[in-house]
Amino acid sequence: MGTLNSLIFIILLISSASAQTLIQMFPNRPQRNGDDELFCDSWRLSVETNNAGMWNTIPAKCLKFVVEYVNGDRYASDSAVVAGYSLDFARTVPITGDGKDVWVFDIDETLLSNIPYYAAHGYGSEAFNETAFDEWVVEARAPALPASLQLYEELRGLGYQLVLLTGRAEFQRNATVDNLLFAGYHSWKRLYLREDSDIGKTAVAYKSEKRAELEAQGYRIHGSSGDQWSDLIGSPMASRSFKLPNPLYFIA
Amino acid sequence: MGTLNSLIFIILLISSASAQTLIQMFPNRPQRNGDDELFCDSWRLSVETNNAGMWNTIPAKCLKFVVEYVNGDRYASDSAVVAGYSLDFARTVPITGDGKDVWVFDIDETLLSNIPYYAAHGYGSEAFNETAFDEWVVEARAPALPASLQLYEELRGLGYQLVLLTGRAEFQRNATVDNLLFAGYHSWKRLYLREDSDIGKTAVAYKSEKRAELEAQGYRIHGSSGDQWSDLIGSPMASRSFKLPNPLYFIA
Repeated sequence: MGTLNSLIFIILLISSASAQTLIQMFPNRPQRNGDDELFCDSWRLSVETNNAGMWNTIPAKCLKFVVEYVNGDRYASDSAVVAGYSLDFARTVPITGDGKDVWVFDIDETLLSNIPYYAAHGYGSEAFNETAFDEWVVEARAPALPASLQLYEELRGLGYQLVLLTGRAEFQRNATVDNLLFAGYHSWKRLYLREDSDIGKTAVAYKSEKRAELEAQGYRIHGSSGDQWSDLIGSPMASRSFKLPNPLYFIA
Repeated sequence: MGTLNSLIFIILLISSASAQTLIQMFPNRPQRNGDDELFCDSWRLSVETNNAGMWNTIPAKCLKFVVEYVNGDRYASDSAVVAGYSLDFARTVPITGDGKDVWVFDIDETLLSNIPYYAAHGYGSEAFNETAFDEWVVEARAPALPASLQLYEELRGLGYQLVLLTGRAEFQRNATVDNLLFAGYHSWKRLYLREDSDIGKTAVAYKSEKRAELEAQGYRIHGSSGDQWSDLIGSPMASRSFKLPNPLYFIA
């Protein structure tokens, strides 16, 4: 952890040195000077509730806040509480034993954590670099998000069929399977990745189509977990959808 | 403010004396003893993202957290940042001048703040008392939520028609109008309250019907602001919906 923290602070120093001019958001709103933490906490709430709409990079003045959030207790606690509510709901569902009771999981920032990647790429302060991220995917060394791994096992124990639905592409299937196994996941029912015909679709369109496909095959989608609203919304939806925190990036 | 703070702490003392046994939520999730603030902050995020689902009263151990939140900087900041994103979006909409461009506002905890009422009734730790709340409504002295009053005026300046859509009942119309004027609101296009035929409907059903009625009359609902997800979801929805914070109560 000492090494990781050192790395984080080195990255912070580098990022600060090359920081963009601070863009003062909402200049006509009351704000006290220097109250970045208060603002950034409100910005994060707006991101998590989807009030912020589409965004590309985190506000420049929120880099320190984001670094502390994802590496500190709060991200872990927020994730654990969402998992707790997910399990509470999951337990209320009568599982039939016909193998058709499904829970859908997104992968990145839901089952797997790419914090080590984002630590080396500005924590959401830099534009998304697809080449660099694809190299990271091939390494297949993303750790599990601990709260999600625990929930995954609990749902499996309750008899849910686990369906993984990711925006990653089909050519990344082997690396993705390797990484899931490395992180401790196994025994999923199905793993959907984007096929060639899905490239260019929004996440909402692509993921809704896959949920519709599942329902057409008789599956009952009781729950869905994702770090993006685009993992969850669109028709059909799961009976209950659970939004995991992600202050690093936005996917439409 | 000194008097208000004294009042708050007296209420806190009374509430503590009669506090329910602390219900440890999610006992199988990692939590450190005494780390109520961390948990309560995660609980609040789950409420705001609708992960918590239906709930009746705030967790007993989060009373202090909620009191500090709604009376401190964070509630004001969170509300102001949502209003900022709302205005950002509102400015992107071409307003036609035909009087059909609408923004819908909920009233309680959106335009008006009932914090003075909840300060005297346990800040969400007590079951909702309809009789007591109706007496408070008749007083017509709820202040404006400052960020919403500013947004309301800005939207009016941009040419939006302002439609108010509340779960309050028709018999409360006069008191509601008095209160809105007292708080500084004026010149709304329409004020919908529940008629007898709406009593018993969920907020989602009732509010969706009213949005459908507006659309049938040719109005374009660009934006909608509410402190409950049930203010915002259901078909038809506004082009963009904005969820204001409310850690005090939940309406289905």
